[in-house]
Amino acid sequence: MSVVKVLDDSELSAEARAVFDDIRATRGGDFVNNFWRVMAHDPVLLKRIWETLKATMAPGALDPLTKEMIYVAISATNGCEYCVRSHTAAARAKGMSQAQLMEVMAIVGMANQTNALAMASQVPVDDVFREPGGD
Amino acid sequence: MSVVKVLDDSELSAEARAVFDDIRATRGGDFVNNFWRVMAHDPVLLKRIWETLKATMAPGALDPLTKEMIYVAISATNGCEYCVRSHTAAARAKGMSQAQLMEVMAIVGMANQTNALAMASQVPVDDVFREPGGD
Amino acid sequence: MSVVKVLDDSELSAEARAVFDDIRATRGGDFVNNFWRVMAHDPVLLKRIWETLKATMAPGALDPLTKEMIYVAISATNGCEYCVRSHTAAARAKGMSQAQLMEVMAIVGMANQTNALAMASQVPVDDVFREPGGD
Amino acid sequence: MSVVKVLDDSELSAEARAVFDDIRATRGGDFVNNFWRVMAHDPVLLKRIWETLKATMAPGALDPLTKEMIYVAISATNGCEYCVRSHTAAARAKGMSQAQLMEVMAIVGMANQTNALAMASQVPVDDVFREPGGD
Amino acid sequence: MSVVKVLDDSELSAEARAVFDDIRATRGGDFVNNFWRVMAHDPVLLKRIWETLKATMAPGALDPLTKEMIYVAISATNGCEYCVRSHTAAARAKGMSQAQLMEVMAIVGMANQTNALAMASQVPVDDVFREPGGD
Amino acid sequence: MSVVKVLDDSELSAEARAVFDDIRATRGGDFVNNFWRVMAHDPVLLKRIWETLKATMAPGALDPLTKEMIYVAISATNGCEYCVRSHTAAARAKGMSQAQLMEVMAIVGMANQTNALAMASQVPVDDVFREPGGD
Repeated sequence: MSVVKVLDDSELSAEARAVFDDIRATRGGDFVNNFWRVMAHDPVLLKRIWETLKATMAPGALDPLTKEMIYVAISATNGCEYCVRSHTAAARAKGMSQAQLMEVMAIVGMANQTNALAMASQVPVDDVFREPGGD
Repeated sequence: MSVVKVLDDSELSAEARAVFDDIRATRGGDFVNNFWRVMAHDPVLLKRIWETLKATMAPGALDPLTKEMIYVAISATNGCEYCVRSHTAAARAKGMSQAQLMEVMAIVGMANQTNALAMASQVPVDDVFREPGGD
Repeated sequence: MSVVKVLDDSELSAEARAVFDDIRATRGGDFVNNFWRVMAHDPVLLKRIWETLKATMAPGALDPLTKEMIYVAISATNGCEYCVRSHTAAARAKGMSQAQLMEVMAIVGMANQTNALAMASQVPVDDVFREPGGD
Repeated sequence: MSVVKVLDDSELSAEARAVFDDIRATRGGDFVNNFWRVMAHDPVLLKRIWETLKATMAPGALDPLTKEMIYVAISATNGCEYCVRSHTAAARAKGMSQAQLMEVMAIVGMANQTNALAMASQVPVDDVFREPGGD
Repeated sequence: MSVVKVLDDSELSAEARAVFDDIRATRGGDFVNNFWRVMAHDPVLLKRIWETLKATMAPGALDPLTKEMIYVAISATNGCEYCVRSHTAAARAKGMSQAQLMEVMAIVGMANQTNALAMASQVPVDDVFREPGGD
Repeated sequence: MSVVKVLDDSELSAEARAVFDDIRATRGGDFVNNFWRVMAHDPVLLKRIWETLKATMAPGALDPLTKEMIYVAISATNGCEYCVRSHTAAARAKGMSQAQLMEVMAIVGMANQTNALAMASQVPVDDVFREPGGD
């Protein structure tokens, strides 16, 4: 149970319903997961989050599967169960193989290890990483 | 200044020097960044971290640039300056364009936003995300 | 189940019981939540945490509801389920409306997004934010 | 130095300039801080973040100062220096007193303490915090 | 349920089985906990994590119980339930008393409090803490 | 520069001065680090934090050096530079050797790695870790 009610379709405002229609059309299916059913308490917030997510995850300089795996890695780092499960499912739906998932996990483990080591030792940034060259 | 001395080449133990040789051979260049110069105080740890990193970031089911961008995203989420700077530089060296970097940032922002919203509302995990199908 | 036993009233030491008495008197009710029943294993720690919490959350330059909403926002950012649930309940008890809760959530999402973007890009602090003027 | 160039006004695209115009009009001043000058590399992202921020921080069920103090508390919890400094400055500009700032800090300290204690002990959520009553 | 199947002994590859044999020999018992049964999907990752963990937690300049209590404290700070529970159990198995556990918790709470206060106030590092003396 | 002024001795209130006297007496030296000079803006908070810290770090079921190393590990996990530096210095003052520091770091790296892996894979807690036996 969430801290606010998970709304079913009959409880949506007209504005929220319009967003749900777009979620369904974009994804090509009827299922709308609980995250949106919680956000729907505030239709302005719901619309803003959905439209931003749709734009962020659309194909661009990166393909959708790469984007989704980055999302999984961040969710794991934050320890957000809902986010790990929903984005792992989304990545599988976009074609992530078991081997790819295990490699994402290996990076998640490794990056959190070296991040912690760098913070523990307070390594000074190398000058070359501050070079204006690529900036 | 780090909490332990950043060792220069003349201060390395034989075991640490052997790892530095492998870093140089693997990367095809003489530069060894400060992170390894700090780890070199404990040659066993140095060797372990380097070998694990080399194996984790090698081409596999994911290509090296995708792996490096995932590393950047985790580093940003952890707020580790050294890690953000060194892995952003590494990703550029592997071909990341400015447009790709901005898309990684957009996902970093978006994922941290929806992660926080999911944790604030304690959304229950949808049954379908628990389905044993893909597991 | 917690990693230490959740103590019921009959298991309290005299020192822990005295703190529970003060919790009940301060809150005007008999209910003492599990957090205190775990802390009660160490009556000195229990007393210290309770007295600090009572002082921190008392009306001062900020009113109690504002304080409680700040507590909720931090708890969500940390991903602590117990903390999100108990402080959201406390904020409701102090009068937080559904609209106020949704606005707290929107800030939680937004702040975590821009925090992550600032950490990803390592934006340099503007001089004006370092000016001694307001400090 | 950030990982991408901090753009000055002469380097802005037309789309980015339009957003900067709105930032200046909304804030009633010429100063645009570095965060936006970094986001300006991606005018679509810039526009999205600014419009969402403007909507989130506008007066609503919560007043702007309360919102800004919540932002400060989250930024401190994330350990984001840029965010702590810029939002503390913004809160001062909206009237936050020194006493109010010290109270925000006290809550930041206290909440992170009890959050950590709850996570260390894995306190089970009390049934009353799951009651559908307020949900 | 984890996002990948928890493998039982009959589902292990030969390489994973060899690691399990070493886990059992090292710990002197038949029980292998779920973490390893998930890692076993990638026998190379499994072997690397297990060998690193074994080396890290072996007696050295610090005794095994001290090491395990540090592990518990980090796990609580990260809010990782699995990690808190498994390492608290491991620390108990290595002799941690109830009083020691309560002291670990007190430090976990206190450190997270003062960490958050230092980040909220952006305290400048004292020169003496940067002295090269011990470095 | 911190977000509030770092107070020198001449700017202390009588209540803050009394706490500084106790810090000096307890530590047996004149030096008072910046953290306390920032907290001194709110003498009640200053007193509370100092007294709690003194009690938490006093010898008990754990010795002071062990406690300080746990503090270092948490500070690294949180990425708090001030905290890493001040508590690493404190641990050295209490006798931490270079070898012990490197072992603390190795655990910090390892624990953050396996924490992240456990969160990425959402490993279910083994029944034995929930057994009421030790609780």
